[in-house]
Amino acid sequence: MANAVGTLVLLRHGESVWNAENLFTGWVDVPLSERGEEEARRGGVLLRDAGLLPDVVHTSLLRRAISTANLALDGCDRHWIPVRRDWRLNERHYGALQGKNKKQTLEEYGEEQFMLWRRSYDTPPPPIERGSEFSQDADARYADLGDALPLTECLQDVVTRLLPYWEQAVVPDLRAGRTVLVAAHGNSLRALVKHLDGTSDEAIAGLNIPTGIPLRYDLDAELRPTNPGGTYLDPEAAANAIKAVANQGR
Amino acid sequence: MANAVGTLVLLRHGESVWNAENLFTGWVDVPLSERGEEEARRGGVLLRDAGLLPDVVHTSLLRRAISTANLALDGCDRHWIPVRRDWRLNERHYGALQGKNKKQTLEEYGEEQFMLWRRSYDTPPPPIERGSEFSQDADARYADLGDALPLTECLQDVVTRLLPYWEQAVVPDLRAGRTVLVAAHGNSLRALVKHLDGTSDEAIAGLNIPTGIPLRYDLDAELRPTNPGGTYLDPEAAANAIKAVANQGR
Repeated sequence: MANAVGTLVLLRHGESVWNAENLFTGWVDVPLSERGEEEARRGGVLLRDAGLLPDVVHTSLLRRAISTANLALDGCDRHWIPVRRDWRLNERHYGALQGKNKKQTLEEYGEEQFMLWRRSYDTPPPPIERGSEFSQDADARYADLGDALPLTECLQDVVTRLLPYWEQAVVPDLRAGRTVLVAAHGNSLRALVKHLDGTSDEAIAGLNIPTGIPLRYDLDAELRPTNPGGTYLDPEAAANAIKAVANQGR
Repeated sequence: MANAVGTLVLLRHGESVWNAENLFTGWVDVPLSERGEEEARRGGVLLRDAGLLPDVVHTSLLRRAISTANLALDGCDRHWIPVRRDWRLNERHYGALQGKNKKQTLEEYGEEQFMLWRRSYDTPPPPIERGSEFSQDADARYADLGDALPLTECLQDVVTRLLPYWEQAVVPDLRAGRTVLVAAHGNSLRALVKHLDGTSDEAIAGLNIPTGIPLRYDLDAELRPTNPGGTYLDPEAAANAIKAVANQGR
């Protein structure tokens, strides 16, 4: 049966106040900017207009994804659905770069090192110093992680920590026939898309997911996309945004 | 051991747009007014300043309680905690009065009937007509209820439908030692308080819970309050608000 599982909808949070200031954010829990809130509301309108109404939502533990989910779900009248949250949907931990200006980092380390940290599959930035301003050592939400708390991550690390949550928490919702919204981050969603589409380690470097535009995946009984790459609810806006992101930091 | 269970915190949502217009609301899913949003944010500040940080939140399926929880939790940096929602925490269903003006209803039916519907323990308003404007027959969030969907409720009905959720969902969180926030409504919280304090059917008629002020209950191992009646985080504001609510509709 082709339609044996539910529908997956990915939503990347919109602009945060640190995106607006061009800082590396990672696990630092900054709020959405007003523009980011507007993007989230528009995401909700796109869901509503498409009749693509989530039955359950999964978010990271970070405010910008949580607020995005709240605003989008309110916009399509699905504020009341069950909510699941997990650190495994968090943005990639940016290590010692967290809180640093992207342009300054580019100037300080040069284009090659900068792009390696940003885009290579398996090169993490230097680890963040424990107890430093932008570390998460003292953060109650990660207390259960103990020594598993990341101090830096490459995209491969994100894939590794994401997939157990995908299998244990998201897949059961899909197998129950639900429409599942995952509201998360650029890199946790890239990790998920890489898994779904079987993208190579090299090709994933060039993949950008635009903010605020729901991305629908129709999955077969083996959880393989019947629409590889997914389908954006506003394809034209998505295409324009992808071009803009590709030029970011240049 | 006196402190064998966690701490319970009750939070009644603030002003909704229909409170502001003096309409009976019940299960009609109206949003908070700007004033109501401000009340919710202040509730979060009170939680933060008291160091009373929820580990888990339970809400109804209605937007005004959900938004209140979202805003309050954001205000005390607890936006990331687990969320549970259930219709059993909904406001009392106001039957055929839903959507009607309170003052007009008072004039039409007289003081005695009006107060009986508002405050008696066991007299529900007339049932709402199925398929009418303010009924919930076609509402997806209640689809699983089938014939159990209320068409009207008295406070006794709220107690009856609330207690199974209390026992099955809230008590286990308390027994796990968690600080539990319940963000709900005037009458679902009155029903809960009646159960906790062992308030008589007569005395509960005179009990008002102010909006937006967290009410803490410390429970012993038998889930009896060690502080009967609970403790408001802002006792002076609570006392003033209780006086004002008592005069409402007069």
